[in-house]
Amino acid sequence: MSKSRFVAGLRAVEELLVNRSSEVRRLYAEYRTPNPRVEAVIARAGEQGIEIQPANRARLQQISGEVRHQGIVAEIRRTSSLDESAVRTLVEKRLSGAAGPPLLLLVLDGIQDPHNLGAVLRTADAAGVDAVVVPRHGAAGLSPTVSKVAAGAAERIPFATVANIGKTLAWLCDYGVTIVGTSDKAGKTLYDSDLARPLALVMGREHSGLRKNVMERCNELVSLPMHGTVSSLNVSVATGICLYEALRQRRDRSSTDSATRLAEPPVLR
Amino acid sequence: MSKSRFVAGLRAVEELLVNRSSEVRRLYAEYRTPNPRVEAVIARAGEQGIEIQPANRARLQQISGEVRHQGIVAEIRRTSSLDESAVRTLVEKRLSGAAGPPLLLLVLDGIQDPHNLGAVLRTADAAGVDAVVVPRHGAAGLSPTVSKVAAGAAERIPFATVANIGKTLAWLCDYGVTIVGTSDKAGKTLYDSDLARPLALVMGREHSGLRKNVMERCNELVSLPMHGTVSSLNVSVATGICLYEALRQRRDRSSTDSATRLAEPPVLR
Repeated sequence: MSKSRFVAGLRAVEELLVNRSSEVRRLYAEYRTPNPRVEAVIARAGEQGIEIQPANRARLQQISGEVRHQGIVAEIRRTSSLDESAVRTLVEKRLSGAAGPPLLLLVLDGIQDPHNLGAVLRTADAAGVDAVVVPRHGAAGLSPTVSKVAAGAAERIPFATVANIGKTLAWLCDYGVTIVGTSDKAGKTLYDSDLARPLALVMGREHSGLRKNVMERCNELVSLPMHGTVSSLNVSVATGICLYEALRQRRDRSSTDSATRLAEPPVLR
Repeated sequence: MSKSRFVAGLRAVEELLVNRSSEVRRLYAEYRTPNPRVEAVIARAGEQGIEIQPANRARLQQISGEVRHQGIVAEIRRTSSLDESAVRTLVEKRLSGAAGPPLLLLVLDGIQDPHNLGAVLRTADAAGVDAVVVPRHGAAGLSPTVSKVAAGAAERIPFATVANIGKTLAWLCDYGVTIVGTSDKAGKTLYDSDLARPLALVMGREHSGLRKNVMERCNELVSLPMHGTVSSLNVSVATGICLYEALRQRRDRSSTDSATRLAEPPVLR
């Protein structure tokens, strides 16, 4: 499962064929299934000229591992994950370019559960983050389970593994990127932070949160208001709330900016 | 599993003992386990005067069903779910009282997956919603899986099952509660809606979204901006984003209101 990668299950494969069919190398499918959705997927793949390989259940299970394949597995041309220098290039390009919204990076300080990583990637893709950065060791990596839960996002979103999150945050900070970490001990809330600047949002691992050396690299720590009895939110839910608050602030800012630009002389940025 | 209910797994039971130990009827625990967290839970329960019942793995598994018990299961005094008239009483009380933030109800139009329901309840509890309303039929109900994922929220949050969601929305609307539904086909986004009013937020089921008759009962439909390739967010993530946007608007409004109150004569509300 090193070079080529597999996406199993109806919903994930359907998403693949709709959005990124060009990346599908071939489809392994159970023929003569009573499931009309599987048949529809096979028909669609056929129309798109994708090679279809009949496979029995044992073969599908062997390919998909622990993920429920539901009679269908796609093999995709995996764009391998980025390394540190590729992230640096991406960040430099985004910071020097005038186009588009401000940089938005998502840094995950060691998420352990592949279901959570998958849900986070799906959310990050929806929010349009530029890249997701994770530590190379001691954290969940890309896997069929992640791909399945991410509903197509795992193969799409720039995904970078780095040796040391603290060091990455250090150079991001030198580049003028604001590092905002989430912590339930933070003195201010998400809503008191300016998230419209070029931003790296740092989320901690399940249960234990941000590690001390990572927390120290943050320019700001923010918390989410908790009004009930549970002590924390699921990490993918918390990530969604934070990323969408950043999107909201950027949207509000950009409408204010355009209003201001009409009244003010142009400024070089 | 009708009258008394069970919460299994270390994290869920730890949450119970910290926040609502008075609701724990007894604890079933595997003795002589090498896990110090189980021992700490047993010690804590003992200090709180909770009856502890030694149980072997077979017994724990029988009680907890499909949920991983990790050596510990709590039996709790379940406050049964509310019926329609209890929701009506709760809403009337909240609407007539001046205290507290505006009403915030979460209506789930048929969530199927117990993991999703659990994650939604955890999120709803954190956001401080007044009650969660679900249809009695055709949707996931409370179960050990839901309790486990909800990390304690399933036993805490007012949870109402009603015969017909459409009818419930109709009387809520008559009471002056704004019904906001989420739909990817909505013409405006979440951020264009005033969520600081007394509100019932309606989330659709996985994949298919809101049913037509429910959608027709909504005063407004809103969407979440989608910037990537995935076509939707997980329902618990989407719920978190919507509820926390409501909290943000209420917070901003209440600080504006207090500033205004200083300058204006008091107004009867």
